[in-house]
Amino acid sequence: MKVGVVGGGQLGRMLGLAGIPLGMHLRFLEPSPACPAAACGEVVPTSYDDEEGLARFIDGLAVATYEFENVPADTAQWIAGRVPLSPGVRALVTAQDRITEKSLFRSLGIPVQPFAAVGTRREAEAAATAIGAPCVLKPRRMGYDGKGQCVITEPTKGSVEGRVVEAWESLSRVPCILESFVEHTAEVSMIAVRSRPPRGQPTTIFYPLTENVHREGILWRSIAPAPCDPMGDLDRQARAFVQRLVDSLDYVGTVAVEFFVTSGTLVANEMAPRVHNSGHWTIDGATTSQFENHLRAIAAWPLGSAAMCTGVSAMVNLVGCVPSTAELLAIPGARVHLYGKGARPGRKVGHVTLCADTPARLEAPLRDLESRVVWA
Amino acid sequence: MKVGVVGGGQLGRMLGLAGIPLGMHLRFLEPSPACPAAACGEVVPTSYDDEEGLARFIDGLAVATYEFENVPADTAQWIAGRVPLSPGVRALVTAQDRITEKSLFRSLGIPVQPFAAVGTRREAEAAATAIGAPCVLKPRRMGYDGKGQCVITEPTKGSVEGRVVEAWESLSRVPCILESFVEHTAEVSMIAVRSRPPRGQPTTIFYPLTENVHREGILWRSIAPAPCDPMGDLDRQARAFVQRLVDSLDYVGTVAVEFFVTSGTLVANEMAPRVHNSGHWTIDGATTSQFENHLRAIAAWPLGSAAMCTGVSAMVNLVGCVPSTAELLAIPGARVHLYGKGARPGRKVGHVTLCADTPARLEAPLRDLESRVVWA
Repeated sequence: MKVGVVGGGQLGRMLGLAGIPLGMHLRFLEPSPACPAAACGEVVPTSYDDEEGLARFIDGLAVATYEFENVPADTAQWIAGRVPLSPGVRALVTAQDRITEKSLFRSLGIPVQPFAAVGTRREAEAAATAIGAPCVLKPRRMGYDGKGQCVITEPTKGSVEGRVVEAWESLSRVPCILESFVEHTAEVSMIAVRSRPPRGQPTTIFYPLTENVHREGILWRSIAPAPCDPMGDLDRQARAFVQRLVDSLDYVGTVAVEFFVTSGTLVANEMAPRVHNSGHWTIDGATTSQFENHLRAIAAWPLGSAAMCTGVSAMVNLVGCVPSTAELLAIPGARVHLYGKGARPGRKVGHVTLCADTPARLEAPLRDLESRVVWA
Repeated sequence: MKVGVVGGGQLGRMLGLAGIPLGMHLRFLEPSPACPAAACGEVVPTSYDDEEGLARFIDGLAVATYEFENVPADTAQWIAGRVPLSPGVRALVTAQDRITEKSLFRSLGIPVQPFAAVGTRREAEAAATAIGAPCVLKPRRMGYDGKGQCVITEPTKGSVEGRVVEAWESLSRVPCILESFVEHTAEVSMIAVRSRPPRGQPTTIFYPLTENVHREGILWRSIAPAPCDPMGDLDRQARAFVQRLVDSLDYVGTVAVEFFVTSGTLVANEMAPRVHNSGHWTIDGATTSQFENHLRAIAAWPLGSAAMCTGVSAMVNLVGCVPSTAELLAIPGARVHLYGKGARPGRKVGHVTLCADTPARLEAPLRDLESRVVWA
């Protein structure tokens, strides 16, 4: 089975590694032929508006998917008109616009913080008045890893309205969303996979809720099951919310939804219509990885179990600096995943997973690992 | 790190899949560019005696290895003269000749059945007299999957000597070994990995003893830990024997040694100086797979744990017939590994692994799996 993937970064690479044992041949649409995914599949180096390149990409594909959410909607639509594309275009365009995304969450009864669209100076002022400080101004589109976000606190001089307008001007007046800042005690994500078999009902499986710690807006560490949720209440809430979301989108594939934890409840932050960094621990810590299950879902094959295969699993990202493989492998139990990328500040170049029977047994090796990883 | 692998079959493919996350780039020496390993590495399609092709193969390699043991000794020697080759040439040539191999076992105190070399008619007769029936005549070299073996039982008419001579003639009088037939209750294998770090002492790790069932001379099923060894006595014996073997060869990499179990003791049958089919369960059932540990050993990186990550693991080969992936994935807990090969009678095209907490819990899914796999 030939599977097309738009994007050829590390997510494509890990999809490729999961697909080969299933007998899949993956083809990546990616401008750079030397991308991380090139190690385990074919690369069609083309731009998103080159119909000839796109035609080469889709030639002979049984199904197509994407591994990053900033695929232009026109390109996704063009592909979807010719090859089954999963997740579908609606999921993609919903996730591309923070207003559309949060509006969908709200319409499904998934809690979100107060938010408003900011497209003009007047809207900026009105939004600031309605939402107040502290708040966060973000571009509606094309955001990742916390880039281009402005946090606005209660000003000691001047007005919130003035600060929001200034922030919007500093973001070159692109269409933005102003969100109330959510005071939170933790950040978690729910990774789910929904399939729609040729016969029978759709099924959705859920990985255990994952707790995430960010650093400079970039994911630093994930632990599953989430330590902040010892009784599983948040896990149950998250499953119910994500179930509504994927059913409403008739979603096929792996999805990640990020939540803030505030006063023991969840507030949805954003969704990613793809495999997600906070699910990388599933390669080593779950019976079936998010990558394999994504491929199984889009191929309409039965899904594999999302159960943990050990008691607890932690993942630490390698950011900005490629450490010595031998040193990482010297950490007892460390599972090393490098992406074949050159080092650059703030760039994810790999991750390391640790598994243990109990949270207590994870502590020492995790401290050891974190002390050896240099963040750059 | 660029790693060269002589051979590009399914073992190369699984080495490639293990090497990519470690940041390795694998290059395979294999006549057919469309080989199973091509999915996850570069293929240099060349013959073993083409020095120009071999030069392209070794160009820029940090280390080289092989994934099948019938690499011509001259080729191995040529490579080893230019790039570190692990396992070394001595291990390779020892495993290529059943007489050399069994003589080494015997010299190390590893039990073997009575055997004798057969190179002439006179030697055939003398060997038959010394060993008696039942016995097995095999070519000294190039054997795998039980091909070209003759079992000689006590003749009702004529002499054992006559039957052995006949058998030898039917094997075109190639140099052979005559072995006493070992009545056995089980077949087991010990997979071990030895590394020789740049500083410090060599280390050897051992996977739990694996019990194997063959069918028409081809591996059908493996279970680890070996059900025939509930107290671990055979496991301890096997570790001690294999430790002597790898130390004597100053071995680097993964090795498999197959034993017969007879009256509660082990009789060594043969060694494979490479990753081995009876170790495929380690991909899903052990903390670190035999493939990853082979690469870590030859790269002089620290080895990973060989401990089981579940209580018990079973592997069933897919032989001669490529089943529907969707049907295999419908078996609860089945982990599917396809090799990207066309079907042909007697050809291994993939394998499926099952893991369980206890042997009792493995029974029903294993029966289910075996009932669905068609052997052709």
